[in-house]
Amino acid sequence: MYTVSKDRMVEKTTAFSKYGDLGNGGITRLSLSPEALKARADFKKRAEALGMTVETDDIANMYATLPGSEPGLKRIVMGSHVDSVRSGGNYDGIFGVLSSLEVVETIVTEKIPHRHPLTVMIWTNEEGARFEPAMMCSGIVLGKFEKENMLKVVERDGTVTFGEALEASGFIGDAKNRLNKDDYVCYFEPHIEQGPVLEEEGLEIGIVEGVVGMVNYDIILEGQSAHAGTTPQSYRKDALRAASRIIMELWDKLGALDNKLVFTTGQILCKPNVHTIVPNYVKFTLDSRHQDMDVLAQVVSIIENLPKDVYGCRLSYEEHWGRKTIRFNDKMLGYIEKATNDLGYSYKGMYSGAGHDAQYVSEILPAVMIFIPSKDGLSHTVVEYCSPDQLVHGANVLLNAVLTADAEL
Amino acid sequence: MYTVSKDRMVEKTTAFSKYGDLGNGGITRLSLSPEALKARADFKKRAEALGMTVETDDIANMYATLPGSEPGLKRIVMGSHVDSVRSGGNYDGIFGVLSSLEVVETIVTEKIPHRHPLTVMIWTNEEGARFEPAMMCSGIVLGKFEKENMLKVVERDGTVTFGEALEASGFIGDAKNRLNKDDYVCYFEPHIEQGPVLEEEGLEIGIVEGVVGMVNYDIILEGQSAHAGTTPQSYRKDALRAASRIIMELWDKLGALDNKLVFTTGQILCKPNVHTIVPNYVKFTLDSRHQDMDVLAQVVSIIENLPKDVYGCRLSYEEHWGRKTIRFNDKMLGYIEKATNDLGYSYKGMYSGAGHDAQYVSEILPAVMIFIPSKDGLSHTVVEYCSPDQLVHGANVLLNAVLTADAEL
Repeated sequence: MYTVSKDRMVEKTTAFSKYGDLGNGGITRLSLSPEALKARADFKKRAEALGMTVETDDIANMYATLPGSEPGLKRIVMGSHVDSVRSGGNYDGIFGVLSSLEVVETIVTEKIPHRHPLTVMIWTNEEGARFEPAMMCSGIVLGKFEKENMLKVVERDGTVTFGEALEASGFIGDAKNRLNKDDYVCYFEPHIEQGPVLEEEGLEIGIVEGVVGMVNYDIILEGQSAHAGTTPQSYRKDALRAASRIIMELWDKLGALDNKLVFTTGQILCKPNVHTIVPNYVKFTLDSRHQDMDVLAQVVSIIENLPKDVYGCRLSYEEHWGRKTIRFNDKMLGYIEKATNDLGYSYKGMYSGAGHDAQYVSEILPAVMIFIPSKDGLSHTVVEYCSPDQLVHGANVLLNAVLTADAEL
Repeated sequence: MYTVSKDRMVEKTTAFSKYGDLGNGGITRLSLSPEALKARADFKKRAEALGMTVETDDIANMYATLPGSEPGLKRIVMGSHVDSVRSGGNYDGIFGVLSSLEVVETIVTEKIPHRHPLTVMIWTNEEGARFEPAMMCSGIVLGKFEKENMLKVVERDGTVTFGEALEASGFIGDAKNRLNKDDYVCYFEPHIEQGPVLEEEGLEIGIVEGVVGMVNYDIILEGQSAHAGTTPQSYRKDALRAASRIIMELWDKLGALDNKLVFTTGQILCKPNVHTIVPNYVKFTLDSRHQDMDVLAQVVSIIENLPKDVYGCRLSYEEHWGRKTIRFNDKMLGYIEKATNDLGYSYKGMYSGAGHDAQYVSEILPAVMIFIPSKDGLSHTVVEYCSPDQLVHGANVLLNAVLTADAEL
């Protein structure tokens, strides 16, 4: 088995933590910001030093390619993103890029034979924290979003459009460089788990079998506003009371479906939201995810069968976007499992609850993801953390899985 | 029994509905706004036409006084306010002023003998909708608020201070004109109920025995934010779930205390309030009112004994201002009850759940309030409504109660 260098992996992680450093252990490195452009420049410099050729496509996705020994073979690609959310951490996204770069550095340094060209890539604007939506540029490449519409998206808290930020970045290349199935053979994406399961179960690696499907609803309760002091309780149609009842009912009913089901009522709007007035309108969101679409169908059925009258308030709901479960490629999963077993790491198969660029890529290429544990299950926060050993475990699995794919594909 | 003129009562109500008319049945007549100043000017003109002398004090409270037959007697005062909330109606406040004016007009027109001077008054800024707090100017007169602090209050949605609005109004008078116990003998305030009880029970008059005491709390749940897709339900510390549980528990426990207890969770703040993130912080308000302070003590005890750990979230609470129950003067209540009985109107004794200027006045003068029904229990809305007959019932009770007080005091 080959292994990467822990010292180099730590050096890379430390070096990139300076780009957007908040001084409190975290970073803000929004897509195409000056900090993100510095990270891209450092990536380019390091890749070229390893003998890689760096290209970009028309939406600034970056592709650094090391030639293989056998002419005419398609590229094996691995990577993730370098942008972060506001007040994010040093592992989400960037770990996938730096572990991929370390894999290539190990192959170059140790002169490990490989037949295919090896590409390390950076997706532009995965987080969607500056320009919505998330996974914008894998979405454009895979036809999920119209590029022309995306170029017009204005940054949150500012006036710059995504198109203007792209122009100013200096990283616009040729559309023909976009990831495609003619030039590439398969895709690997290492990432932090962003959840507590691996840590809680004491496991080193998560083999990501797919990305769970999801449904999103708004649930609305409409009652009657009334004066807090003059309206007896029996006359009230209190929309917040009704919403509280429904949130409890959702926990009871959805919680009984399957222990892998996750559901979240994360956002609530209350009107008029004045302490002396009985609320007449409450809207809250329900986000629910599971790998089995039949379970999600049961979630939908529960929502459809919620009582229509709750303490005199009218209940209604609006369905928003959903997605079907993505199952990653079995052969790719086999490469990851073999590498993990050969390295002697503990692991489990699991689904990703969060969305990742890999889910779009999986529509045109055999794709797979590798998870490493997140301390306390936390991500998108300055206290996000993975230990050097955890980073190395993930990179080692990637290295050996890539070499197996290189041999077999 | 004497009775007022229905035609005149309707004419007054219609005339004043033009000051701030929104064209949809409602008004916006914020304190000291151009619309409110027009209403004051019309009031002054009508009062002077009846032979009343109009004075103002240093915070623009208006006092229109008709002399009595017996020199040296103190004034009987009645009134309310002419300011409204934004998008309010044509009855809250203004009914008290116009019914008082109609009582004096009836006395003047019908040459009804009376010993005491009769004063109709307008309180400045009862609603607090433009300049917080509510009941500002009765509060200044009764020593609840420091005038100097109130003068600096800046209007909501603007830059004008209360002091500047006063200066510009043209209604500033002498501080010695403030309502006081040396010059006045008792206080009457007619008002709309702002609740559904009289209408639901088919009653014509509410004899207001007092203003209920209240307690106000913030209740806070602190959990842990987490990713909606990657965090199994069993690991979650969801502050909105915990808040929903506590709101249900409050309805169960407070609802069992006494059917005259009202309690309201009107305002909720959820952080980060993003549909893909488990909420880590929810704060909601609890406003609770009852005429019996012992019942409110039980409310406080229930709050103090809420569980401190709710689904892994830490519960805490902050007490905000409260007020003790105000009981109006028994002799004044007797005058109202006698007038109501003599007129043959159906009635009940009740407490006001809302605050009114009368509650402050009751600290220095025998005071009382008269309620008339509010259609559908609604106030502070453009659909606020009382029928002409209901207005007349209230004015008739006031007229006869004032005459009894005039005879007996």
